[in-house]
Amino acid sequence: MATSEASVTRIMVAVNESTIRGYPHASISSRGAFEWTLQKIVQSNASGFKLLFLHVQVPDEDGFNDMDSIYASPDDFKSMKNRDRARGLHLLEFFVTRCHEIGVACESWIKKGDPKEVICHEVKRIQPDLLVLGSRGLGPFQRVFVGTVSEFCVKHAECPVVTIKRRSDETPQDPVDD
Amino acid sequence: MATSEASVTRIMVAVNESTIRGYPHASISSRGAFEWTLQKIVQSNASGFKLLFLHVQVPDEDGFNDMDSIYASPDDFKSMKNRDRARGLHLLEFFVTRCHEIGVACESWIKKGDPKEVICHEVKRIQPDLLVLGSRGLGPFQRVFVGTVSEFCVKHAECPVVTIKRRSDETPQDPVDD
Repeated sequence: MATSEASVTRIMVAVNESTIRGYPHASISSRGAFEWTLQKIVQSNASGFKLLFLHVQVPDEDGFNDMDSIYASPDDFKSMKNRDRARGLHLLEFFVTRCHEIGVACESWIKKGDPKEVICHEVKRIQPDLLVLGSRGLGPFQRVFVGTVSEFCVKHAECPVVTIKRRSDETPQDPVDD
Repeated sequence: MATSEASVTRIMVAVNESTIRGYPHASISSRGAFEWTLQKIVQSNASGFKLLFLHVQVPDEDGFNDMDSIYASPDDFKSMKNRDRARGLHLLEFFVTRCHEIGVACESWIKKGDPKEVICHEVKRIQPDLLVLGSRGLGPFQRVFVGTVSEFCVKHAECPVVTIKRRSDETPQDPVDD
């Protein structure tokens, strides 16, 4: 059935890189949130939805300070920027390709900054119908140290938010990893 | 398209009575959460979903204490129980009728107790794919006094939870009302 643009549900999915592997794979919780959205919400009604993938890159302040003797020239900064961009695009490609395969419309983009702040800002700007976030499902003790993006967004994002916790059989050895 | 039972997404919607009118109408936020679910998630894919309506009735302790000279006999208790039951069924009828009209499978039931505890307990028992809750969207000052069921469930329910805030143009004169 053809669905008019007005009745299409726009779901924003915030995605990030895995902390486990060296290469820019999607994190376990990002993939979980994405698969949940397809399986439980979109189902076979591909034309009824549009997925909006937001990837927020965190400026690597520590790394930057450690290396300011190495990243000295404007060219160094440029190549660092290009590398970040390539990593981000590679990450988004995973989600976009999957959407193309199953015929769900999508958009994707990269922003830099504090993920929780940027996500809420982009929600305000884009006004999606739903924001889907993956979460590591950390206990209160672990949360104190790592903070959680999802808790902040549930409180502050100006749209409905659903948090998809990692399945327990997908939790890596160190649950802070993802 | 026929959808097998296994791939049907089961969405629990917790519903309650309005505090505004005398008769057991659905609260503004319950209706908002329900309409959001139909419009944004179910859309025209009625066979892909099953809605599970849970209504938790709060034992009216204050009213009961005030009236213990009136509610003296077993028959009085029985008629009070029947009246509660009738009110609950009337409330659920609104949601069930609407589902029948648009061809979405549903179930509904009534429980007594503290809504936040009962909702989390029923989530554990029923294991829905998603819990949808209406919320008055109160500010932090008001929340201190009235508490919020949705905040508790977002933290403690063992399934993904989405909270649908009341539209600002639907907020009654006293925002604590619903």
